[in-house]
Order: sequence, then structure tokens, then C-alpha cells
Amino acid sequence: MKLATYKDGSRDGQLVVVSRDLTTAHYASGIATRLQQLLDDWNFVSPQLEDLYQTLNNGKARHAFEFEPAKCMAPLPRAYQWADGSAFINHVELVRKARNAEVPESFYTDPLMYQGGSDDFIGARDPIVCPNPEWGIDFESEVAVITSDVPMGTSADAALEGVRLVMLANDVSLRNLIPAELAKGFGFFQSKPATAFSPVAATPDELGDAWRGGRVHLNLESVWNGKRVGLCSAGEEMTFHFGQLIGHICKTRNVRAGSIVGSGTVSNKDWSRGYSCIAEKRAIETIEGGEPKTAFMQHGDTIRIEMKGLDGASVFGAIEQTVAQLA
Amino acid sequence: MKLATYKDGSRDGQLVVVSRDLTTAHYASGIATRLQQLLDDWNFVSPQLEDLYQTLNNGKARHAFEFEPAKCMAPLPRAYQWADGSAFINHVELVRKARNAEVPESFYTDPLMYQGGSDDFIGARDPIVCPNPEWGIDFESEVAVITSDVPMGTSADAALEGVRLVMLANDVSLRNLIPAELAKGFGFFQSKPATAFSPVAATPDELGDAWRGGRVHLNLESVWNGKRVGLCSAGEEMTFHFGQLIGHICKTRNVRAGSIVGSGTVSNKDWSRGYSCIAEKRAIETIEGGEPKTAFMQHGDTIRIEMKGLDGASVFGAIEQTVAQLA
Repeated sequence: MKLATYKDGSRDGQLVVVSRDLTTAHYASGIATRLQQLLDDWNFVSPQLEDLYQTLNNGKARHAFEFEPAKCMAPLPRAYQWADGSAFINHVELVRKARNAEVPESFYTDPLMYQGGSDDFIGARDPIVCPNPEWGIDFESEVAVITSDVPMGTSADAALEGVRLVMLANDVSLRNLIPAELAKGFGFFQSKPATAFSPVAATPDELGDAWRGGRVHLNLESVWNGKRVGLCSAGEEMTFHFGQLIGHICKTRNVRAGSIVGSGTVSNKDWSRGYSCIAEKRAIETIEGGEPKTAFMQHGDTIRIEMKGLDGASVFGAIEQTVAQLA
Repeated sequence: MKLATYKDGSRDGQLVVVSRDLTTAHYASGIATRLQQLLDDWNFVSPQLEDLYQTLNNGKARHAFEFEPAKCMAPLPRAYQWADGSAFINHVELVRKARNAEVPESFYTDPLMYQGGSDDFIGARDPIVCPNPEWGIDFESEVAVITSDVPMGTSADAALEGVRLVMLANDVSLRNLIPAELAKGFGFFQSKPATAFSPVAATPDELGDAWRGGRVHLNLESVWNGKRVGLCSAGEEMTFHFGQLIGHICKTRNVRAGSIVGSGTVSNKDWSRGYSCIAEKRAIETIEGGEPKTAFMQHGDTIRIEMKGLDGASVFGAIEQTVAQLA
């Protein structure tokens, strides 16, 4: 099934069920008003939502209305955890090669993950608000999942069963704040402003055969200022699958329902597929010509991120954002 | 006023108002059932809770019962943000001196903060569950605050107005996992298991004159295996006050209601005051004798963290935890 959260002026919005073709929607209010309620009580709530979803897909839902992505908050407008991986090791290799740094051997066996802020997510059509474009505004096109409870010590394969929903993310980075921040040793902090998510979150079964081995075997398209800059495979080159990422978190603690886990920038070895973040383009330019040529985003720039299913139709709806000044 | 969250089998527990002397409590259910509701709608909800608090303190609350800290979850059992500072720069100086590293000049003007996991907090009397004591289990006695909404770009002084509640934290660290994790460059992750908080969270006015300049001018006591190992001042030596820490977060993003912000390990220049984490004791041993002598915590070890007010009475109740194996 496909779910979204409609803006209603509240902090958590209103849960809606969205038709498979993303044309119509229906409030889930008789069943659950917020997505976190579903995640807290999946076995009880999800069958009821699935019923509504089938009715909606059959055109039989009485109070269905046209689905408008612009009315969406993030599927989870605020979450109890946002843990983002860097699971496409090709991305790490490129960025390191550009600065003549080695990739440690352990990076191929031990996932790289950071803890992100999760109190203020933004909707798929909300602006990327940044007071200062000199901070180096960059998009990062990613796949993300929302989990069930996964107890401490769960294996990677078992943790994969904890994937409840799949969606897309734009994990915006402020690149020029990163070097000083990483030098402090405590990881990303100010360099990671609010993350945006696709209008819709979908259960893995919506992906059909494209969901296998804990990966989404589909292409992720990134369109920057109207130009397609990336059509990258989110599948086979994902070094660590989502079960491995969730398992990495729960080595030392429990993962609780509603945790969001990201793939990191989707990245392929074949450069002709383009890029899912500007930093990678700049790394390639540095490797090829000694210095980066492509500038980061400016106020007014647009970014569009979308993924088509095996049937060619948009799975999650598109993230479409414009970079804006702080009001 | 003083607030706690009682275990009731649910994920968020039941909000209770606790008397100033921590002897009695009263369910807040007629007003709000969860602490996050108060934080989401402070101006409407808090006056009603304050009324109940006064009635309780006057011994006039009809359904008051004995307050039992063992029944407490963390005041916020799960939160949308946990951002922990390292605001006592003396702690950083000691740890770096022990490994012959300099403290960069910027550390005195730019707060050190990390993003922590906030989906699975534990109560004041819950065990510290750790599968492997060789990971180097350490307590960290801290002060923490819970915030209101604080918009992006708010100054440090204005951000200080965002402090709604104050409490204590035991930000457990797995010290032996830290070096490899920091070497990866993405900050703490597996090295930070579930954080525990004091039974009670209190509004800043409960601290009286001890709350000034964005700091808590009281002593924080740490008792390890029955022996007092630290009685450290949480006030004047806090290099960055809570407004500066909150302002640091909202340089590039909004801080939303219910965010928890920590002080980092409370640490004083006068070593006779003891320590608030074992790593600091080991740093001092290394500086004095070339190597650490004190081992980290083992299964069965206990830690007790408490703070007395200007009147000598416990402000937040005590954190009392035992290190336990994974069941």
C-alpha cells in the first residue's frame, strides 16, 4: 500500500492512503490519523489500511479525492530516529580519490552511518531554506526505509524483516561546513539541515521483483534546474543492504518502530549514469581535471528526485524543491 | 513544576505531576497523558499542570499517590531529537592531554555537539544493557534540557528562552568502540547505546537562583558501586550555556518542541572534585602516571547520579542503574 501525510496545520499532519497510480487519496482517519500510529501498532492497523487501499484502487472509496503532492508533509513529519548510511561505497571511493585519500579496507565490511536530526523533516515540495548559499548547498538523492521495532543484537538478515515502508529522501548537505565539522571529530551536525522525503511511502510489496536482497533494484532520477543529471541504479551497487544497515544500528541498542534508515547517496561506477549529489560530480571533475568546476546550488535552484517502477510509473511521487532564503 | 512519566506498558507512558519534595505524584490524565503533548502546546497545557502541581504540593490533590522512581520511564521515553554537547571544555582538555593532543583554539568559541539516537531512552532505574563489557562501558553524568520550538537563526540569548524543562542524563558510552568509530569520520554511532534520564524533569524556576546564565549552578554527584567518585559543579565551568548549545543547532535548521539538549560530561578543573565519567579518571591517571589504572564498568556494577538543590533536597530524583547482560 501507499501512504502519505497531508498538511493540516498540526505537527504530525493527517494520514492518507494513496492509490497505486498516485491519482487519488483517502483520509485514513477512521483507522489512524498519524503514520506513527500505524508503525506503533502495525499488525492491528495495517490490515485495515490495506482494505481501504484496495477499495481506493478499485475506484470504490466513497470520499476519495485527487492526490496533490504539494499538500504533503514528509510521510513521518517528525521521527524518533534518522540514521543515514553511506551504503554506496562507490560514492566514498570517488570523494576520497578526489582528495588523494585511501578507502580503509574496513569500509567494505563495516557500514558507514551517521545519526541525523529527525525533529524537523520537510515535505516533498517544501523549499530548501538556507540562510547562506556560501555554505555549499547540495542535494543527495537517496532511498530510505521506515522500520518496525528491531531488538538489540538482531542479525542483518533478521533485521531486514523490520522494513515496513520505503520512500525517497533528499538528504541536503551544506558541503562547505563539512570539513571543519568533521575535523572536530563528532560527525555531521550543522552541515545537515532538514531532510525532505517523497510524497508517498510504500510497503516493499509495491516494488514487486525490484525489492530483493534488501535493495531497491530501480533507477533513481535526479533533475537539477530542469536537466537530468543522474539516472543511477539503486540496486546491485548498494554495498550494504538495508538489513545490514539496521543491524549495524542495533549492535548496541534497540531500534524502535518508526526509525528511518537511509541508503546514502546512490552512486554507480559507470559515470555515464550521472550523479545523485553535486559533490560527486565535483569529485569526478577533480579526478579528471585537477579541480571542481560545477558550483553548488544557489537560491532559486530546483531539484527533482523520482523513481519509476518496473511498470514505468512513479512509485513514490517526486521530490521537487526550490532553494530559498530564510524569510 | 516537576513532571515524570510512569510506565504503563505503552511506548510513551503516562504523564504524572510530582510534588516538589518528590514524595507524592498525581496522574495528569485530565490535562495531558504524555509529556510531548505539553511540549507541543505549552502555553495552553502548562498552566493547568501548574495548578495541579500547586494543589499537590499543598497536600490537597485527591488522588495523589506515593511517587516511586522505579516506575518511571525517561520523562520523554522517545524524543524527536537528542543533541548532546561537550560543553565542559575541561573534559575535552583532559582527554586530549592524556593522548598528547592539542585542543584547537576554535573549541573555546564553537561548541562541540553530536547527534544522538532518541528512539529508545531508558528510565532512571532501568538496567544498562550491554552484550559485551569489553566494549568499555562508561557512565557520563550530565545535565540536559528539553526545548520549545526554536526557529532557524535564533541567537544564543534568545534560544535560552527555549528551555522548558531541566533534568539529568546518564549518556552511557562504549569507550572501546569510540576510536575506530571516530576514525571513520562520521561521529559516534554504535558507541552510544540508550541514554537514561532522571525520574523527574523540572521547570527552570524549580532551581531558583541556581538557574542563571543558562547554567545550573549546583553540584552533580556520581556514586559508582557505592563510592562517591564525583561531586562536580555543573555551573561556572560550563564553557557554553544551554542557549549557546541550542543556538548552535539552529544555525542551519529549526529546533522543534521536545528536543533534548545535553551539557556533556560535567567536569571541573579542580581534580579533588572527582569525575563524572570513568574516561576522565583514566585521562588523569595517564597524565599523572603514564597509563590508565581504573577499569571501565562490568556487569553488575552500579551507578547513581543525583543533584541537590540550594535547599539540600534532591531536585530530579536519582538515576540508579545496574549494568546488565543482554537477556
